[in-house]
Amino acid sequence: MLKYQQIALDIERMIETEQLKRGVKLPVLEALMKEFEVSKSTITKALDLLEKKGVIYQVRGSGIFVRGHKRKGFLSLISNQGFKDSLEEFDITSEVLELKIVQPERYVRDALDLPEGAEAHYVKRIRYINGKTLCVENSYYSKELIPYLNKEIVTGSIFHYITEGLKLQIGFSDMYLQVGKLTEEEAGYLQLKSGDPKLSAETIFHLNNGKPFDYSMITYNYEQSQFYVQSGSYLR
Amino acid sequence: MLKYQQIALDIERMIETEQLKRGVKLPVLEALMKEFEVSKSTITKALDLLEKKGVIYQVRGSGIFVRGHKRKGFLSLISNQGFKDSLEEFDITSEVLELKIVQPERYVRDALDLPEGAEAHYVKRIRYINGKTLCVENSYYSKELIPYLNKEIVTGSIFHYITEGLKLQIGFSDMYLQVGKLTEEEAGYLQLKSGDPKLSAETIFHLNNGKPFDYSMITYNYEQSQFYVQSGSYLR
Repeated sequence: MLKYQQIALDIERMIETEQLKRGVKLPVLEALMKEFEVSKSTITKALDLLEKKGVIYQVRGSGIFVRGHKRKGFLSLISNQGFKDSLEEFDITSEVLELKIVQPERYVRDALDLPEGAEAHYVKRIRYINGKTLCVENSYYSKELIPYLNKEIVTGSIFHYITEGLKLQIGFSDMYLQVGKLTEEEAGYLQLKSGDPKLSAETIFHLNNGKPFDYSMITYNYEQSQFYVQSGSYLR
Repeated sequence: MLKYQQIALDIERMIETEQLKRGVKLPVLEALMKEFEVSKSTITKALDLLEKKGVIYQVRGSGIFVRGHKRKGFLSLISNQGFKDSLEEFDITSEVLELKIVQPERYVRDALDLPEGAEAHYVKRIRYINGKTLCVENSYYSKELIPYLNKEIVTGSIFHYITEGLKLQIGFSDMYLQVGKLTEEEAGYLQLKSGDPKLSAETIFHLNNGKPFDYSMITYNYEQSQFYVQSGSYLR
């Protein structure tokens, strides 16, 4: 673990144990540099990491504040780490129903900026949380950007493979949510009844060079659908 | 309109008309300064505004890229402007069912960091989109931070009053989403059937000094629940 990650962890623990309470203003940079005996750039990196994790909130010209902790039992809805970041708290597993290379239809090509005839990995999975069905997922990965996938990779975290195995950096995502009623097919996968409520999420994930690499359609089991959405300071 | 806002608008129009396409890298700062004949700080402000609006995407050390446009017909789910920013596209109105000062219960006080006996404005509204029920909302506003509300204000945009009338700056928010089935009472407000799907959103909004000022519980009509959620570069 790098120094700045250790400092971020130390500060996070102080927040978890409420030595630092929600709404409290953190000491100024100079005081933090002195306390941790590190350079300004190390402290800045630690604070940037904490802000990305939603643990603190930086206000330009005003200071750095402690944010509240998310409630237990809620999954982060927009996480570019897939559900991987929730694995400490939840036991998430995947059952792969299909993995094949396809020439996707127009709407998928549009989402992924692919020319006609381009290839993509198609992945269909059921995901389980603590042994219950969480969602059924249909995803398309651009083969140009993600040349190789196999069953082992898609049984685990595909995003983990992309960032750690391929060393690609994930950038931003656009998600479209809709609430509706389960079709009979979806209900079958989720072990629910046709007509039960559902949350559908359609997401386009981009690498940090702006290229879309994953188009995914997920239907969630409403009984397990407890999500946390954090708006950041970028909305200020 | 300030110079940087005008530049932001000019760039946004170039994106809308696809003179600048999704995924394209913007010219470097120096070139933009030259093109618009302004200082570096003006260009930087314009780009920051565009990033906040989700129109561009800045990658440190790599460049600035054009993001795609959100699809029409979707409301932004996490907007610290309430629905106000959607008003160009949608016709959103409110029917105020209740507006009164209360001493809120424990769970509301916890969310708003209020001591026992503290007062809050309680607002119950039905919101309509293009003439159809969009949601039923129960909100509590800390009276300490928002001393005054009246029916005229809550019939319009409360957030607009807070930012323009009180000149307060809205900071971050924490939202908890759940999908479930409508109760009979909720169904009545939304003109739906008991047992129909619903999306419930519980949100704590904070000012940019870290203080929570609004705790709101919203139940959405699933037929109108089409939401857009944009993850920003802060998740990188």
